[in-house]
Amino acid sequence: MARETNRKLYWSPGTVALASHIALGEAEVAYEAIIVDTSQGQQHRPDFVALNRKARVPVFVDGHFVLTETPAILRYIALCSPEAGLWPSDLESDARCSEWLSWCASTLHVAYANVGRPGRYLESDEAKAELIRVSRSTCRSLWQQVEDRFAALQTDWVVGERYTVADPYIFTCWLWGRSRLLEFDMARDFPHWTAHARRMGSRPATLAALERESIASP
Amino acid sequence: MARETNRKLYWSPGTVALASHIALGEAEVAYEAIIVDTSQGQQHRPDFVALNRKARVPVFVDGHFVLTETPAILRYIALCSPEAGLWPSDLESDARCSEWLSWCASTLHVAYANVGRPGRYLESDEAKAELIRVSRSTCRSLWQQVEDRFAALQTDWVVGERYTVADPYIFTCWLWGRSRLLEFDMARDFPHWTAHARRMGSRPATLAALERESIASP
Repeated sequence: MARETNRKLYWSPGTVALASHIALGEAEVAYEAIIVDTSQGQQHRPDFVALNRKARVPVFVDGHFVLTETPAILRYIALCSPEAGLWPSDLESDARCSEWLSWCASTLHVAYANVGRPGRYLESDEAKAELIRVSRSTCRSLWQQVEDRFAALQTDWVVGERYTVADPYIFTCWLWGRSRLLEFDMARDFPHWTAHARRMGSRPATLAALERESIASP
Repeated sequence: MARETNRKLYWSPGTVALASHIALGEAEVAYEAIIVDTSQGQQHRPDFVALNRKARVPVFVDGHFVLTETPAILRYIALCSPEAGLWPSDLESDARCSEWLSWCASTLHVAYANVGRPGRYLESDEAKAELIRVSRSTCRSLWQQVEDRFAALQTDWVVGERYTVADPYIFTCWLWGRSRLLEFDMARDFPHWTAHARRMGSRPATLAALERESIASP
């Protein structure tokens, strides 16, 4: 990692920041990784809230410019390194890439977050337990939708023949499926998606990002 | 509305599809509006699920191309009519536009949906009532964040000097604040955001979209 750079990624282990780490590696962008340990509640520290009032990671900083929201950060990374070709150039692939990023952020991630952070919207233990139970079932159904999309794909990558920034986001969801919160048997139940995850796992940028968090390869 | 077009927007009253209607009007794109009344559960009809397995509106169809997810649809509409200038051309404004779209979809919309559709992730009446109560409070806090962003803006539109497709999405959230689900006093509690909503309300594309659903102007 370069020591002299104006680019910084604020991140926490076990979060969606992983997708941005992978994309930054693919784009060969030099950046400083600054940990904000959400398991310790560090996202609520005044200095971080002053940077990002949403109190969430990741945050990408490029000089004076502060950017939040994973779909926006992934697109920004792609546009910063056009030679890496991480954002599609034709209209329909562009739209499909946006669609995957948005679906991951607004649906898959939200369902998973309900399992891991039921206290975001609920207070009582009974209601939280119900949210976890139903959301696990919703995740199973959503993960099956992703599997079916992968089964119908004729290409190695989710948008088409070329790897895009949508790939690290859907890969992060694959890891969530394998995590202790969901404990899906990914290889058995979602084999096409798992084949994609293993293609991801063969890329140096993925391996470096996984190693940072001591996450096993797919 | 043109009768001969390959472009179709599947929509339902009272949903986020409003943002796409407004953007299509701004882009002066001819399209056919096809109603899928979600209050009647029509999104679960086999013919619609065959089009969009997610069983959600909006869906935008352009010839053979089927696109879901509001942020992706809004960007696609902007790119289809570059002369309308609905997507920013400089890197930072581009990122800011993506960030607003993503925040609307993954956070504001999700919190609001918890109030209106608590059954998405819960089964018991007690848990649903709790979700509605806490999510209303979360919405109040998020709406205040948006107000503070508008208060700090030096420009008429949310991304900068130019109107972008982020404007109709945040405007749709303003309408949700005024709706019977939240019943916020938008003009009193969120005056800067309301000034933006009134600028939106002065545009023919907004007025046409509101009229379709018999929604009062801001």
